[in-house]
Amino acid sequence: MSTGAGAARGVVDSPVTFWYPPRPMRSAETIAIGSELLVGGRLDSNSLFVAEQLGMLGLDLRFKTVVGDAVADIVAVIRVAAKRADVVVMTGGLGPTVDDRTRDAVAKVTGRPLRRHPEALDGMTRRLAAWGRTPSKAQLRQALIPRGAEVLPNPVGSAPGFALSWKGAWLAALPGVPGEAREMMTTALVPRLRAALGRRAGRPIVRYVIHTFGRPESEVDAMLAAVRVRPKAVQLGLLASPNGVSVSLTAPGGPPDRLVTAVRERLGVWAYATGEERMEQVVGRLLTDQGLTMAVAESCTGGLIGHRLTEVAGSSGYLDRAVVCYANRAKVELLGVPDELIREHGAVSAPVAAAMAEGIRLRSGVGVGLSVTGIAGPGGGTDTKPVGLVYIGLSAGPFRAGTRDRAALNVTKEYRFHGERSVIKWRASQAALDLLRRWLINADPFEAP
Amino acid sequence: MSTGAGAARGVVDSPVTFWYPPRPMRSAETIAIGSELLVGGRLDSNSLFVAEQLGMLGLDLRFKTVVGDAVADIVAVIRVAAKRADVVVMTGGLGPTVDDRTRDAVAKVTGRPLRRHPEALDGMTRRLAAWGRTPSKAQLRQALIPRGAEVLPNPVGSAPGFALSWKGAWLAALPGVPGEAREMMTTALVPRLRAALGRRAGRPIVRYVIHTFGRPESEVDAMLAAVRVRPKAVQLGLLASPNGVSVSLTAPGGPPDRLVTAVRERLGVWAYATGEERMEQVVGRLLTDQGLTMAVAESCTGGLIGHRLTEVAGSSGYLDRAVVCYANRAKVELLGVPDELIREHGAVSAPVAAAMAEGIRLRSGVGVGLSVTGIAGPGGGTDTKPVGLVYIGLSAGPFRAGTRDRAALNVTKEYRFHGERSVIKWRASQAALDLLRRWLINADPFEAP
Repeated sequence: MSTGAGAARGVVDSPVTFWYPPRPMRSAETIAIGSELLVGGRLDSNSLFVAEQLGMLGLDLRFKTVVGDAVADIVAVIRVAAKRADVVVMTGGLGPTVDDRTRDAVAKVTGRPLRRHPEALDGMTRRLAAWGRTPSKAQLRQALIPRGAEVLPNPVGSAPGFALSWKGAWLAALPGVPGEAREMMTTALVPRLRAALGRRAGRPIVRYVIHTFGRPESEVDAMLAAVRVRPKAVQLGLLASPNGVSVSLTAPGGPPDRLVTAVRERLGVWAYATGEERMEQVVGRLLTDQGLTMAVAESCTGGLIGHRLTEVAGSSGYLDRAVVCYANRAKVELLGVPDELIREHGAVSAPVAAAMAEGIRLRSGVGVGLSVTGIAGPGGGTDTKPVGLVYIGLSAGPFRAGTRDRAALNVTKEYRFHGERSVIKWRASQAALDLLRRWLINADPFEAP
Repeated sequence: MSTGAGAARGVVDSPVTFWYPPRPMRSAETIAIGSELLVGGRLDSNSLFVAEQLGMLGLDLRFKTVVGDAVADIVAVIRVAAKRADVVVMTGGLGPTVDDRTRDAVAKVTGRPLRRHPEALDGMTRRLAAWGRTPSKAQLRQALIPRGAEVLPNPVGSAPGFALSWKGAWLAALPGVPGEAREMMTTALVPRLRAALGRRAGRPIVRYVIHTFGRPESEVDAMLAAVRVRPKAVQLGLLASPNGVSVSLTAPGGPPDRLVTAVRERLGVWAYATGEERMEQVVGRLLTDQGLTMAVAESCTGGLIGHRLTEVAGSSGYLDRAVVCYANRAKVELLGVPDELIREHGAVSAPVAAAMAEGIRLRSGVGVGLSVTGIAGPGGGTDTKPVGLVYIGLSAGPFRAGTRDRAALNVTKEYRFHGERSVIKWRASQAALDLLRRWLINADPFEAP
């Protein structure tokens, strides 16, 4: 399948083109389609990525709408959106089942009947063939595209998208599967929108985000009190989550460097990443740079730290192993934690965390061992050891990285986390990775949150 | 502050009442207000809870809208919503800052000017006094309520909500802070809506969901082709995700038992759970019922299976340990996988998966060992072993559960997953847990997907 706009122009069966809309493109709206997003307990997460991409093009996203699978309702929201926004990006409702009604709704609104589109059919057939399959009758519906629309190729799934202009608005439909919507937004929609906007494009609305861990929102707010947020067009935002507190600076053209520097200076070592980067990527980059290997011994996090580290491509270069030793016997067998230590202090204790970190490091022969033991709840808490009590251990052998010698270190930290089981697990994993990060950047781990 | 509707009626300064709307209340729409929900990377999670509550009242939620802080835009969405829905629930924009414009927008739409409402002021003053504070000038704005609206008391925060009827639609405004919106929805809005609906209330809209794993959406659709979906009010929906394909039956009063039974019969052992239940909970329940313990050896899933199992409270009762053996050396040391086996077949192979499953079972002394080895990508693939190739192994000793004897079993299955690294990891974890589930229910694991 060709991905060029020129080739696509060649196959449309009407002279309609959409990339020179009769009115300037300024405002945008997203429409997420699917009853599961209305009443199925599922959130429209596609709009986050679409919003960011539209903002980068200088488009002003003013509305987001969610609608179910009823054609009449989809028709109603498309009508409203096309009136109040110049660019409308729909996600969902392009699958092969009878629930998937976006095609029908767009055909109804625009008065352009659905046609089997040769390019869409071709792309879908090839993709399925690569998986050793042929299109089913239901899947053939996915090649139906409103007359005059351009096909947006789907490089990762079977359902193609499409785009067309109608009454001066630019309408695009993408599949609802997040991976596919994301990929098609980047590879198909953004280049076409950029070409369509040309020099009339507004300044991109850029959001610069700095992620911190270890201090509550009010303290992060206080850290920034002395920073003058100028020019006035810059919006400062704080967002708290189990990952920590994120500080955002949003402005047309992006916040000035001077301001970004001032904010970063105030946040100091509490800031662990910017933009899309996650803690596990930061830690992975530092380990790679320093030529270090690591291993993890997890009790209450149950594999979450290993899972997070291995979400990063290339993590096999520094992660040797992780053991989840839920049972005390596993702690003894896999890590060599002395039985007496567990009997004397309990499995959730600083001495056991220290023995776990050192045990995993020595047994796997890596540079750094990391351990977590705690009470994730909801059961298992006592007066002296309540739910949310977590000990994290870090054990490092002496070694030389670049021009620096680093002394051997065994450190444990005590934490009290609040929230439900999954939140306590997540915060504990974040705290463990942050402790490792601080050690890797030579910040004092004892000062860690 | 009184929370009774009667007391509220006593203080309104106009004869407008809202609980006998001139048209029957059937359909609903939510509006989430705040620029951070449009472009700030934050999702409108309030609507999940509001949707559930409205559904329980028999209201049909047909649209969700998100809008920023611009008064003109809020006005536009309220106008559209009041036309197409009988009940409109707004969240956000009731705080003390200049960004909080919901009050102004409602006043503008309805033509009812803002008045300082004695009940709202009283409630806010008392609440702040309990925290040892007096209302600031900015906070006093929060006592401004459109003329004729009823105040909705806020038992947990300072900003009161309000409700009024306008052109036959019922409009309610709640704060955006999730805890406050949730509390006020339950304590203030639902009782008023229930009273207003009275005997005209629709039957609660109940959604019954069945989760399947192992067959693509088109095949699940085909499985259900012979089922007569009756009565016509029942909506059948399919939703594909890395967890599999979920089938939903939504109807006022819930789908009839006969239909649920018919659908479940057609889905057979492909169905693994219903409603909110997740695969790891199903597996945990089966293990508990049968008094079995398990252990996991993970390579490409990197700890995800351990993480998922330990998301379930009480999992320490059946999960002995999990090991993440990314390095080949770890496979040899921790599981006793023979070096030659890895050299001959490669780490990603059926024989290694089998040796891993048996190794973890024998070394930990549990009833069942589960293993995963594969290529999560994006690198590491070859022509013969592409990205997405995954082997799952299950090793069980002979044992007696209840009245059944089960023979010893060592089984491996080959899978080809598509998608990005995190999706491949997730699908592999789901497939592994599903294989275990099938073994636990005595379905033939060799028939597993």
